[in-house]
Amino acid sequence: MSKGKKLVEEITSMDEDFAQWYTDVVKKAELIEYSSIRGCMIIRPYGYAIWENIQKQMDADFKATGVENVYMPMFIPESLLQKEKDHVEGFAPEVAWVTHGGNEKLQERMCVRPTSETLFCDFYSNIIHSYRDLPKLYNQWCSVVRWEKSTRPFLRSMEFLWQEGHTAHATAEEAEERTIQMLDVYADFCERVLAIPMIKGQKSEKEKFAGASSTYTIEAMMHDGKALQSGTSHNFGDGFAKAFDIQYTDKNNKLQYVHQTSWGVSTRLVGAIIMVHGDNSGLVLPPRIAPIQAMIIPINQKKEGVLDKAYELKDRLSSFKVKVDDTDKSPGWKFSEQEMRGIPIRIEIGPRDIENNQAVIVRRDTREKLLVSMDEIETKVSEVLDKMQADMLERARSHRDSHTYIAKDMDEFEDIIKNKTGFIKAMWCKDEACEMEIKERTGATSRCMPFEQEQIDDKCVCCKKPAQDMVYWGKAY
Amino acid sequence: MSKGKKLVEEITSMDEDFAQWYTDVVKKAELIEYSSIRGCMIIRPYGYAIWENIQKQMDADFKATGVENVYMPMFIPESLLQKEKDHVEGFAPEVAWVTHGGNEKLQERMCVRPTSETLFCDFYSNIIHSYRDLPKLYNQWCSVVRWEKSTRPFLRSMEFLWQEGHTAHATAEEAEERTIQMLDVYADFCERVLAIPMIKGQKSEKEKFAGASSTYTIEAMMHDGKALQSGTSHNFGDGFAKAFDIQYTDKNNKLQYVHQTSWGVSTRLVGAIIMVHGDNSGLVLPPRIAPIQAMIIPINQKKEGVLDKAYELKDRLSSFKVKVDDTDKSPGWKFSEQEMRGIPIRIEIGPRDIENNQAVIVRRDTREKLLVSMDEIETKVSEVLDKMQADMLERARSHRDSHTYIAKDMDEFEDIIKNKTGFIKAMWCKDEACEMEIKERTGATSRCMPFEQEQIDDKCVCCKKPAQDMVYWGKAY
Repeated sequence: MSKGKKLVEEITSMDEDFAQWYTDVVKKAELIEYSSIRGCMIIRPYGYAIWENIQKQMDADFKATGVENVYMPMFIPESLLQKEKDHVEGFAPEVAWVTHGGNEKLQERMCVRPTSETLFCDFYSNIIHSYRDLPKLYNQWCSVVRWEKSTRPFLRSMEFLWQEGHTAHATAEEAEERTIQMLDVYADFCERVLAIPMIKGQKSEKEKFAGASSTYTIEAMMHDGKALQSGTSHNFGDGFAKAFDIQYTDKNNKLQYVHQTSWGVSTRLVGAIIMVHGDNSGLVLPPRIAPIQAMIIPINQKKEGVLDKAYELKDRLSSFKVKVDDTDKSPGWKFSEQEMRGIPIRIEIGPRDIENNQAVIVRRDTREKLLVSMDEIETKVSEVLDKMQADMLERARSHRDSHTYIAKDMDEFEDIIKNKTGFIKAMWCKDEACEMEIKERTGATSRCMPFEQEQIDDKCVCCKKPAQDMVYWGKAY
Repeated sequence: MSKGKKLVEEITSMDEDFAQWYTDVVKKAELIEYSSIRGCMIIRPYGYAIWENIQKQMDADFKATGVENVYMPMFIPESLLQKEKDHVEGFAPEVAWVTHGGNEKLQERMCVRPTSETLFCDFYSNIIHSYRDLPKLYNQWCSVVRWEKSTRPFLRSMEFLWQEGHTAHATAEEAEERTIQMLDVYADFCERVLAIPMIKGQKSEKEKFAGASSTYTIEAMMHDGKALQSGTSHNFGDGFAKAFDIQYTDKNNKLQYVHQTSWGVSTRLVGAIIMVHGDNSGLVLPPRIAPIQAMIIPINQKKEGVLDKAYELKDRLSSFKVKVDDTDKSPGWKFSEQEMRGIPIRIEIGPRDIENNQAVIVRRDTREKLLVSMDEIETKVSEVLDKMQADMLERARSHRDSHTYIAKDMDEFEDIIKNKTGFIKAMWCKDEACEMEIKERTGATSRCMPFEQEQIDDKCVCCKKPAQDMVYWGKAY
């Protein structure tokens, strides 16, 4: 029995138990290892390489819009966390408290940052004086801690890696513009690089960030039909500025409060990649985010010349991220490992291929095989990777669209929830009571009021009073 | 009065008060801002950009030696920290303790990592089983916390950014080889990129890392003659492996303990750059680490065509990191800012220069002015940057060498300490009593036993018993 076969057998089928399939994949593809610290995961090299690729490409996107990186302390004194009322109410119940330094008890306890609005506000109140100091467009890549009750790798962990952008602007308009701009950067990145289509919209009052005046979100549909909030962008108005006294002198020499935003994505995105693209053989990585884009697998590699040809091919393909699997495992085992790890293509090359000046390219997503002449291998690899990237986005989009339903009344709503998986588009009066009732009756939450509104009906799906917005509803991670 | 002049006036002279000069530079060059958390600094965009450049280039150096990045939890349960006796004794007095999560008291308190040996060992004991699993060459970029009594930006702060490499090997030889290899990577990086020459050597038993069997170090001399330990590489032997039970089955099917190493550099390196290269006008950055390599400063920029020419020049120099200072400040002010921020060269371009098809390049370190024809500006900029990089290294080396003295007895030793600043080379018997006595009498500590030994004398500088090693001694940060 090859280990490859065994690897595959060990994964639970995704249709049988999606949650277990997910856990199997993150472990068997060696993305993470559980640690002895409750709710904290170890991100292994292959998982971290995916995050590094996200960071590298997204950081360039940020910088292209004028954002600069900084690093803020990881601790927040209790008094600082308490300065903005809504914010502290939202976060205080779920922070880790440092009470002792060395052998001494601290005079004031500090929490490990769950998010850094308060730190940035304190900083901004010291460095912003005049309209010349604006805007401030700062971001940091760091880890944050939230004392979650139940945790899952990448999706919800006590400590997680993320970026948090924090900006300060002279006007409300500018702040709103930046809030939307960063949401667009996120959505564009997810579609272009991760091959995940996003629904952009606004969160309800109930679902918005603690302390924000409005929260925007990108929502993706996972393979099991559930929603994953994949990134958020908040407009704070001047609420934090008033709490932290961040004022500047405008051109007319008058004191004004700044307007602020914050926005973040996290290692959750790795979870999204797994749950949108994965299949029963493991991970499937979009070529643009894959740490290894092609695995060359020599067939009959002990035969003279085969390994040399494989290395030669690797050199020819140096503009891609390519590796040769030259271990002493069997080809079948290597195939299974390459599939489990979601490497976009494998290139099989054996004695007969060499004789015929050809190689076999196998796509990970469709398993389509292409017999390719060595003379045009660079072009073909490039074409296959591009095609696969585009196909993965289209497949995810069509999966989402075919799992999106319309409900005009609660009977329809409950029927869909009971018999199908996916998103429900339904009208809403904007009364929180209806939002709560829907959640209680169906388990679905309001995911967002999408920017692209449709006039499905003129009445609220729940109370039948006049509707204000179409909302995407769904069960969520 | 131009603000430029004022900026310069505000710096303390380095000969008058080096510590105050340092503090002035980190603040005025906008590298850091103090935070309201004791001993924690905010790294501002310009300071963080230097660290990003260090990370980017050093990370590539690591990866070229087969190292892979991971991410480990930031918390260490108390019982895990206590597993290796020397290690816990070294670190427990200076850690931050988390005792509460949300509103609940933890059953076992956890510290914020001061370093992650214990976490990596716990991880390795789970994933290493066979000789096929070795070596493991892992690294992480993260922040760590040490409850320091007195702190200084970049040099010693409660929280700081660093990388920590942790490797596991089948044999003692392989571990020792890796320990030295990473020290070489550090020293080479510092010379090549930061223009800081390093003395490579071994730490004494007293100065070695808590839990290590041997510690190697790179030591640099700052402008004030003091030493800065700039990076360390530790060989743990199998001490941690025994404490954490990290065993593998070798080729003969026998259980063996692994041999481990760890190695790290931190944002301290930014402090080293400041203190080795800075002058009374502020920072001086080596071209290879500078976030901005050239600042184009238009002269008489309101005159038609001047700004256009400046932007045109920027486009032509796009293979360098170039900016145009097109603010409405005066040229003198811009010059001072460029000098304060240590931007390697400025390029002055005014109406007469345009007429004569030329520009003026001014080197930050020597202030040398070069009148350069526009026809060869790319080549000249490249030459000047290369020359400056090389000159800075040579200047630092000759400063160090001319501030390194030999002492054959304690009278000479004390005389040098009293009247000069710098390193002292002296022989040592390897008895800790002498090391302690020297420290008490002179304030100098043993920096390292350099790999390049010299036979200065055959007797210990202190006790006159037979000497074993030549040691570099010095006052240190």
